[in-house]
Amino acid sequence: MIIKEELKKIKNFINNFYKEYNYKGALIGISGGLDSAVAAKILVDSLGKNKVFGVLLPERDSSSETVKDSKIVCDFLGIEYVKKDITPILRKSGVYRLEPPTFLIPRSIQNKYVKKRWEESSDDTFIDDLKGDGDEDFLKGLAFYRIKHRIRMTQLYFEAEKRNYFVCGTTNKSEYKTGFFVKYGDDAVEIEPLFHLYKTEVIEMAKYLKIPNKIIDKSPSPDLIPGITDEFAMGISYKELDQILYAKENNGNLNDFDKAKVERVEKILKNSNKKRIKALHL
Amino acid sequence: MIIKEELKKIKNFINNFYKEYNYKGALIGISGGLDSAVAAKILVDSLGKNKVFGVLLPERDSSSETVKDSKIVCDFLGIEYVKKDITPILRKSGVYRLEPPTFLIPRSIQNKYVKKRWEESSDDTFIDDLKGDGDEDFLKGLAFYRIKHRIRMTQLYFEAEKRNYFVCGTTNKSEYKTGFFVKYGDDAVEIEPLFHLYKTEVIEMAKYLKIPNKIIDKSPSPDLIPGITDEFAMGISYKELDQILYAKENNGNLNDFDKAKVERVEKILKNSNKKRIKALHL
Repeated sequence: MIIKEELKKIKNFINNFYKEYNYKGALIGISGGLDSAVAAKILVDSLGKNKVFGVLLPERDSSSETVKDSKIVCDFLGIEYVKKDITPILRKSGVYRLEPPTFLIPRSIQNKYVKKRWEESSDDTFIDDLKGDGDEDFLKGLAFYRIKHRIRMTQLYFEAEKRNYFVCGTTNKSEYKTGFFVKYGDDAVEIEPLFHLYKTEVIEMAKYLKIPNKIIDKSPSPDLIPGITDEFAMGISYKELDQILYAKENNGNLNDFDKAKVERVEKILKNSNKKRIKALHL
Repeated sequence: MIIKEELKKIKNFINNFYKEYNYKGALIGISGGLDSAVAAKILVDSLGKNKVFGVLLPERDSSSETVKDSKIVCDFLGIEYVKKDITPILRKSGVYRLEPPTFLIPRSIQNKYVKKRWEESSDDTFIDDLKGDGDEDFLKGLAFYRIKHRIRMTQLYFEAEKRNYFVCGTTNKSEYKTGFFVKYGDDAVEIEPLFHLYKTEVIEMAKYLKIPNKIIDKSPSPDLIPGITDEFAMGISYKELDQILYAKENNGNLNDFDKAKVERVEKILKNSNKKRIKALHL
């Protein structure tokens, strides 16, 4: 990937979309993570910072770093933003009744406990998550975390539609292929400018774009359940995942990789379809 | 359309989907309207009434008939259902701050006032709605009504995921083609069993399935803004719309129709694309 060329293409893509549908600007959910920082930076470089609006949507279980890091990103970009705590919306939806608050327990112990529960909740939690199947407790867990991203989507569209702005997505190829997103949550957007890039390429791009180190260096996490990072959930590092995905896409030699890792990726791909389908009777 | 044959095909479609993804049942939002009644009836005939769960999601601006009619449908089907008023969720989202309550004003006057505002808010309200464009007040109106269906979606998925049920959609071909739905709202489902049928065909099917007359006879309405029915919003009757859509799809003679009506449909089709697209950088 020649980053400079790639950025030029993405900016064209954004500008063409923006003009074709007569938008007045772009709106993006800033999570404090790397993907939204990169997407937002490219939006700013495409449309100008006055036409990019950031929305921070923390909730009860968000890490204490979430808002702090999101503000670092917005300040770096120089964009206007608003923070809206979605806890009351989730509470009224009955979400927190499924998992009681743990604010009296130190975060480190919470993380350890949640990790243990994640591991014990199924033989292969991530695969069962993709399948949407499991016992009552497991299903409660799915409903509990997924509604958070969906409620975020409703709020992003609410703010975007008031302004005739488009909602910009941050899904990358690694996430999409593995089903590592919430259907009708973070994938429900108007445009996906990073859709063709593997996570490791987005990280490269982040460095090139001089995204603050604090954002680049932290472990990627959906920040939906305390302590659960992307790589912990998937059971493979992004580096290995992307190399195997790339090899599979480009007829590379899979024998170059650890056999167990290749099998892991294949199992994930095989089960991720449910995240993307919508059955239409035609 | 030979209704009996058609129903058999739809039931197969539902059963195959249900088995392929190991679902435990189906969940459907019951609005008191005809489409959800027909879809739910076919679900019951496919999976059995014990595997179909209805969800009623009224809010502050729902018609007083909404819940009453939804209960008529659920009782007719003999399915279990739950009612969840989404008003508190919408209130916490800041939705009602955009449009103050009007409960002291009789419904008939509300309807008249809202219709007048709808007509005055733009030269062609429905087309501007499809485009998502207009002045500040108009855009506020879009954000105001659309979030209602999106919040409904979040609640349907929340209830479905707890049970490993699939969320069943009720979108018909007339709605889809004209963009008469809320993106990531009522179109955000796992399966669309009525997707290939025009609205007028769904009405025929409703009669065949003996859906209660009260449901068949009422004017189709999204029940999002008081007094705004489908046909009022689109500026054409479903009968005329479907005949013209059918003629266009099957190389029929468009001269058989009123010229102004054909132009209306063409204008709607031309502008409805934004409701369906998601721009992916590939």
